Formats: sequence, structure tokens, C-alpha cells
Amino acid sequence: MPRLILVRHGQSQWNLENRFTGWWDVDLTEKGEAEAREAGRLLAAKGMLPTVAFTSFQTRAIRTLHLALEEANRLWIPETKDWRLNERHYGGLTGLDKAETAAKHGDEQVHIWRRSFDTPPPDMEPGSRFDLSGDPRYANATVPTTESLKDTIARVLPYYQSSIVPHLKAGACVLVSAHGNSLRALVKHLSGISDDEITGLEIPTGQPIVYELDDEMAEVERYYLSER
Amino acid sequence: MPRLILVRHGQSQWNLENRFTGWWDVDLTEKGEAEAREAGRLLAAKGMLPTVAFTSFQTRAIRTLHLALEEANRLWIPETKDWRLNERHYGGLTGLDKAETAAKHGDEQVHIWRRSFDTPPPDMEPGSRFDLSGDPRYANATVPTTESLKDTIARVLPYYQSSIVPHLKAGACVLVSAHGNSLRALVKHLSGISDDEITGLEIPTGQPIVYELDDEMAEVERYYLSER
Repeated sequence: MPRLILVRHGQSQWNLENRFTGWWDVDLTEKGEAEAREAGRLLAAKGMLPTVAFTSFQTRAIRTLHLALEEANRLWIPETKDWRLNERHYGGLTGLDKAETAAKHGDEQVHIWRRSFDTPPPDMEPGSRFDLSGDPRYANATVPTTESLKDTIARVLPYYQSSIVPHLKAGACVLVSAHGNSLRALVKHLSGISDDEITGLEIPTGQPIVYELDDEMAEVERYYLSER
Repeated sequence: MPRLILVRHGQSQWNLENRFTGWWDVDLTEKGEAEAREAGRLLAAKGMLPTVAFTSFQTRAIRTLHLALEEANRLWIPETKDWRLNERHYGGLTGLDKAETAAKHGDEQVHIWRRSFDTPPPDMEPGSRFDLSGDPRYANATVPTTESLKDTIARVLPYYQSSIVPHLKAGACVLVSAHGNSLRALVKHLSGISDDEITGLEIPTGQPIVYELDDEMAEVERYYLSER
């Protein structure tokens, strides 16, 4: 039976500081590293051993993958990194903390950007210190200037279909280490969650979520591995 | 100009204990981790930034790669792991330290196994605690029972030709994080070193060796990155 395991990266420095991070490449905190290792120990303890792994182009997700695989003694499995699994791009909000954002834009507007399905934040300004359009990492990518959750889904799902589903169909146990919003894209698709509901669905850090799928790649069962 | 960077993994626990390791999966020591990070800092300092990476199926080489890439801010480049880049398989010597090996087989015989090009050590005994033939990691590999350096070369070079050379021809800067003997295979091939000489050539741990190659994949220049 095809099996897909989703893990959201452990705490990053900007999670801790409550800043909009998006595509900015912030590393894990020590707590985040511990969460990643704990996820790997859980995989090993439950005998839920991935045979192939996917992650984003962002250090916090890649390191979460590596630390988890190390603890599960699966560091040798094939891994693929792709920018399409990156976090939602927060545009001009990138780098701002909650208080700065509220002072600049007002609480109500911030709430809309956080919780709307299809309203993107303002574009990142060209020349911003957080502008990654010239970063060699993204030379072959389409770097957005901002994204709504809908925009994020529009890049994650085609990648899932073209690059991950073939492994699932071949019987692999696939581990995806990614971000709150790129994982929301997958959960929305697999569990048929509505546009309104998905923006409020919180995916906890470092908690493996398991999807047992049928041959048509539809959800048979979804559960937190820690609850089995 | 195609460029190939070779890095031998940092010190492992069994390097420290002077045990024959081969395919046994021994982790880095703290010193080994520091060597790996230092290699990555050197890559960054010299602007010698790999665009694609290869490593073995063994934790010490994979972690050396990851720690080096992390320091060089290149964790996002594609990486491929393959058992053909594994260390030479030391057969029945696996796990023995220098004193144990000498006591069991005599100094002269041990010297022959260490320094002969084509004499393999005795086969690993079936059922040995170091026997990896049933390990899921090697389900799709040919696990040797022992190897001479010649045997190691016979698996490394076809892999280099089929999987690494195409990247070099496409203009990539390729980083290979591997082992003393799998790297000897590449150095022998690229620098045209004789069978007799190659067994005595020591490749230092954590020291990036750079090959500048021509379009025919022949050596133009070879140097230690630390010396530039």
C-alpha cells in the first residue's frame, strides 16, 4: 500500500522570533534540531522506514530531513530537493515580526493575509535585502514576488503529481520534509479540505503525519505517527 | 572548464581505533565532523562552489558531505548516493584492529593485504556480525565478501564514467565525498598512477583535492584546495 509521510521542519530562528520567513533561508534552532531528531527516532521506533525522500531548497527543511534520517539510520536513501516544496513566499512581509507588521499594515489586514486563501501580501520590493531573485540557488526556478496559499498550492501540486506520485505508485514509502504551507497544499489535496478550512489548519512541527493511500492515490487513512 | 573536487570523509570512530572498517557503517568522531565543516568553509572561502554532489551509502561520507555543504551554504545542490562509491570491502578483516590482525595473521601478511593491488583479504565469513549482505540498504547492490583495491576500482570507475562524467561534460562543478580507496580509484584513473604506486598513496581526510579537467576528461591540473 503506498505510504506518504509528511514532516514539517522543526523550529527555526524566525519561528522563535515570530517573523514572516517564507523563502528566506533561516536555520533551525537547537529545539528545532531536537524536534527533527525526535521525528527520526519515532520513524525508527514504529518501523515506519522511508525508502525515498523529498525536501525543499531551504536549509531548515533539508536539515530536518537529514537529522531525522540519521536517527532512523536511513541517511542512505535517495533524496530530491526542489524549490517547488519551499514555504509560501510572504512577499513584502518577509523579515517583519508580528508587531512590526501590525504597526505597518494594521491588525485586520495582517489577519487577512494570514488567513485568506487567495489574497497575497504586497510584493517584495526589488532590491529588498530579502530579494532572492538573483540567488544562484534559484537560477532555474521561478522566484515569486509574493504568494497567496492558492499560489503556493499551484506550484506544489504539479510537482507532487509529476515527481512524487510515480514513487508512490511504485510502492515506495515516501518522506516529505517541508514547510507549513507546502504541506498544507498536500493535506488539502489528499484530505479534500475546503479553501476556507485549509488556511486555519495548523501542521505541528516535527510530527510525522502518515497517509495510507490506495492505488488511485486517494486517502485511506491519515494519522499522526506519534498516536500509533 | 570541468572541475571535480574530491573529499575523503573526516575521522571516523574506527579510524581512531585503528580498525579495518570497509563497508561497516561507522560514524564520524567530533574531530571528523570538524574536518568536514572545515572542508566546507574552505570551499566557500576559495569560491569553489560545487553545483552537484555524489557520495557513498555510508554515514561517514554522507555526513561529511552534508556538513561541508552546510558550511558552504550549498546544502540545496542535488546529491546522489551510490554504493559503488563505498570504501573497499575488507572482508574477514572488518572490525579487527591492527594488533588483533597481526596476532591472527602475522605482520607480513597484513602488510601484503594493505599494500597489494590485487590480493584481497580473506572472505568475510557468512553470519559474521559485520556481514551486510542482508542489509536493506544493499538490497539492490552487489555486496562483496572481500575486495582488493583492484576490485574496488572495478566498481568505482564504471560508476564514475556513467554517472559523474555526464555532469562534468555538462559543465558542472562536481563534489565527491567518499573514502580512501574509492577516491584512490579516481586519482589513479585521472592522474595515471601505476598499480604499484597507488596502494601507497595516502589521501588525507577532509582535504579537498581539485581536478581541473579538459573536454576529454583528462587532468589539466590537480591541487589541494588549501594550497591555493
